Amino acid sequence: MTLPPGLEAARRHREERGWEVLADFIDLLRIPNVIGSTGDLRRNAEDLAERFRRREAVMEVVEGEGAGPVVIGELRCASPTATLGVYVHYDGQPVAPDEWTTDPFAAAIATAPWHEGGTTVDPPGPGDPIDPEWRIYARGASDDKTPFAAILAAVDALAEAGIERRIDLVFLFDGEEESGSPNLGRYMTELAPRLVADAWLLCDGPVHQSRLPQVAFGVRGYTGFELTVYGPDRELHSGHYGNWVPNPAQDLARLLAGCKDETGRVVIDGFYDDTLPVADTDRSAIAAMPPVEETLREELGFAAADTDDPHYVEALLRPTFNVRGLRAASVGREARNVIPAEATASVDIRLAAGDDPHRMLDRVETHLRNQGWHVLDREPTPEERRAHRRLARMVRDPGYRAVRVPMGSALAAELVAASRTASGQEVVALPTFGGSLPLYLFEDHLDAPVVILPIANHDNNQHAADENVRVANLWYGVDLWATLIGSDLGGLAKSR
Amino acid sequence: MTLPPGLEAARRHREERGWEVLADFIDLLRIPNVIGSTGDLRRNAEDLAERFRRREAVMEVVEGEGAGPVVIGELRCASPTATLGVYVHYDGQPVAPDEWTTDPFAAAIATAPWHEGGTTVDPPGPGDPIDPEWRIYARGASDDKTPFAAILAAVDALAEAGIERRIDLVFLFDGEEESGSPNLGRYMTELAPRLVADAWLLCDGPVHQSRLPQVAFGVRGYTGFELTVYGPDRELHSGHYGNWVPNPAQDLARLLAGCKDETGRVVIDGFYDDTLPVADTDRSAIAAMPPVEETLREELGFAAADTDDPHYVEALLRPTFNVRGLRAASVGREARNVIPAEATASVDIRLAAGDDPHRMLDRVETHLRNQGWHVLDREPTPEERRAHRRLARMVRDPGYRAVRVPMGSALAAELVAASRTASGQEVVALPTFGGSLPLYLFEDHLDAPVVILPIANHDNNQHAADENVRVANLWYGVDLWATLIGSDLGGLAKSR
Repeated sequence: MTLPPGLEAARRHREERGWEVLADFIDLLRIPNVIGSTGDLRRNAEDLAERFRRREAVMEVVEGEGAGPVVIGELRCASPTATLGVYVHYDGQPVAPDEWTTDPFAAAIATAPWHEGGTTVDPPGPGDPIDPEWRIYARGASDDKTPFAAILAAVDALAEAGIERRIDLVFLFDGEEESGSPNLGRYMTELAPRLVADAWLLCDGPVHQSRLPQVAFGVRGYTGFELTVYGPDRELHSGHYGNWVPNPAQDLARLLAGCKDETGRVVIDGFYDDTLPVADTDRSAIAAMPPVEETLREELGFAAADTDDPHYVEALLRPTFNVRGLRAASVGREARNVIPAEATASVDIRLAAGDDPHRMLDRVETHLRNQGWHVLDREPTPEERRAHRRLARMVRDPGYRAVRVPMGSALAAELVAASRTASGQEVVALPTFGGSLPLYLFEDHLDAPVVILPIANHDNNQHAADENVRVANLWYGVDLWATLIGSDLGGLAKSR
Repeated sequence: MTLPPGLEAARRHREERGWEVLADFIDLLRIPNVIGSTGDLRRNAEDLAERFRRREAVMEVVEGEGAGPVVIGELRCASPTATLGVYVHYDGQPVAPDEWTTDPFAAAIATAPWHEGGTTVDPPGPGDPIDPEWRIYARGASDDKTPFAAILAAVDALAEAGIERRIDLVFLFDGEEESGSPNLGRYMTELAPRLVADAWLLCDGPVHQSRLPQVAFGVRGYTGFELTVYGPDRELHSGHYGNWVPNPAQDLARLLAGCKDETGRVVIDGFYDDTLPVADTDRSAIAAMPPVEETLREELGFAAADTDDPHYVEALLRPTFNVRGLRAASVGREARNVIPAEATASVDIRLAAGDDPHRMLDRVETHLRNQGWHVLDREPTPEERRAHRRLARMVRDPGYRAVRVPMGSALAAELVAASRTASGQEVVALPTFGGSLPLYLFEDHLDAPVVILPIANHDNNQHAADENVRVANLWYGVDLWATLIGSDLGGLAKSR
């Protein structure tokens, strides 16, 4: 099989100038990037802008009123066949240096993970061998500065080989992702004319646990509510009043039990009505994934799944109803013989494609009303407590919808093919991540599909001490990006 | 209607020497009696023994190894018709003097409750009028030193009037009641030959909220358990694993909902099988009680009872299944999007007469097993977590059984009649208190029925700041005890 020229160029570049790619990356990692440290984050933004400018990109650091800086830019080519948007974030989670083996911003190179006996090696120079199993330790090494290094090296590789790029790139580098990107929607609205792309790639997250490359074509949405049901207006002596005064903990148990049947299926009317059906292309993708169910079950220490789906990813294509917390009076040493005055459940609902957060919460509320519950969105008054035997307070956390790109789309096919070509391996094409990310912002503000294209190893200690990236994963990133920008992506622009 | 001579003597004594009764009582209240203060409690014990010795009782302070002192004794008469055991406790709950209007051991007299504008009055001297609405404020004033004052004054009244007592009294004064009487059973076993009586009177607690006198012919028993059900072996991300990994909070809700139906009836097999049926005499007693349901419901702030019983006391004659606490992960501001690793319910079961605590817990456990739960009495091992989809830990708190004296018994009839005579009012004859007290000790160790004979007003601030007794209630106690010990109690001894 002939390799695409872009990929060949990337491999040659890595072999000849890999030491330089690492050196540049280490320089970037040495700029501290902890959330909230405004000065450091500005330095990251300026440094990144400058790096891309040196590759002839047009870059700008934009800082809105009361918001952290974003970096936007574009790297055009002579005859583009498509435009890809590239979203990466440069901020990192806080660090507790005492818990790290080396300084979080030293960007030490280790021969292997520390806990597997890795030892420090000096950054390589020209001609020095580079072991792909090396790890680079730094906050941001995997979450989420790797894509910067990969894209920059890929651009260099093609330039060096004299290969013309075929894809325009538009950049959006976030400095507030670890704070929940509170200003991202605003930035997108304001900057939309400069962020036009055929598709956006969210370059974050890890590849598959099997070390196979992974591309994810969706995320679950999120909504939820906290529900408090009421008994007497104070805790009562269970001896004096037990059997006579209603117990809100018992009421809450019945209420929750009435939301889901024994097979794990939610019985709230209409709960699954809006969910997009699982497509044949989804099923094929899922069937092609390496089986992890039995290993996961062992590792997570439980006896049997809550569903009959043979592949756990199938369960992610339906909305959930998850009791994330329960509370009534006290248990354990603090338990007292009382009838609790109230009982609370906190519920999160992961949304599948098609589900609307508000409509979902409406359905829950209707379900409660149909069962005779008087539902408020605030604390009840004493009069209301005396008037309604079934009285509940529902506090909504609306959240946001899921996002999916069809597995059968040209975009999905092109990205999976590029990943397969670049890695020479099978690719895990994930119909959706289980987790939630506000990818709807890309659809709403930038009117473009968005796909998650991870590079980092799964064992990267993201958010924790000793965050690291495996060099082989960085190399995969370089190869992938060179493959992408050196190809025409099958005329992606026309497929929109 | 002619008054019994004992009662006439008591009234005369109160009129002529009421000031002295109060002065003596105040002296007793001025001896601090906070639980754990060994020296103070010994002073109380010695003082009480001495007071009864002055009335020709034979008294002894007994102090077992590692236990607080009890006072035992006997006050015999020439030709007794029966023997009554008298249980009173002299210890009191801790005090927070800052929260009290007057020093907790000053035993101040007020013209009315402080919060109704009461003001201090000096202790009365000979000939001074005494308002029965006065309150005496002190720790122990109502819980539980009033019976001492009442019995001593009753004995004096009969002696002064030259009336022969007809009842032998046997005393057991506890100094550890507020600590749960940990040594009472031991003392009873050791001292049983000196504590022989036809019936015991537990002289504690308040009369009815309507201010009518009250006699209670039982207490509920108590048992309970804490149940933890297990999910994955750590909290899991609800996005990654929701719909696939079982949620123990949902499981617990279903489990609890399956223990009780919508009408509040427990559906655990055999739950009500051992409970003694409600007798006609119970029903008559309940029907004769002043209706309090509507007032209580308003005061406690709930909409409707959990039962169809028209009288709430009827609900106390069945065992309860009360979820006193619930806990899984977190709610409110600490709530996280997780599948909890475990969920816990703390349940207390109040027992009615006939119920056996151990058998009750066995039934709960059998119910769980029948529903497919694997029940342990300890933390599960990782292997057990992987082996059993329904896995629970049940920690038993066995407690003790209920105690009842039949409402139709001679003892019940005599005590209600004496109370009615002494007060000149209707008497609330309560088939059982809702709360639990270890009265089984009297049955097991002293082989005698036990009845609760309260004197104190219901608004006595028991256990709290500004504990008090209403003088009218003390006077009722004097009259009641003079009536009792001056009568032959209808040949109670023979009725055993």
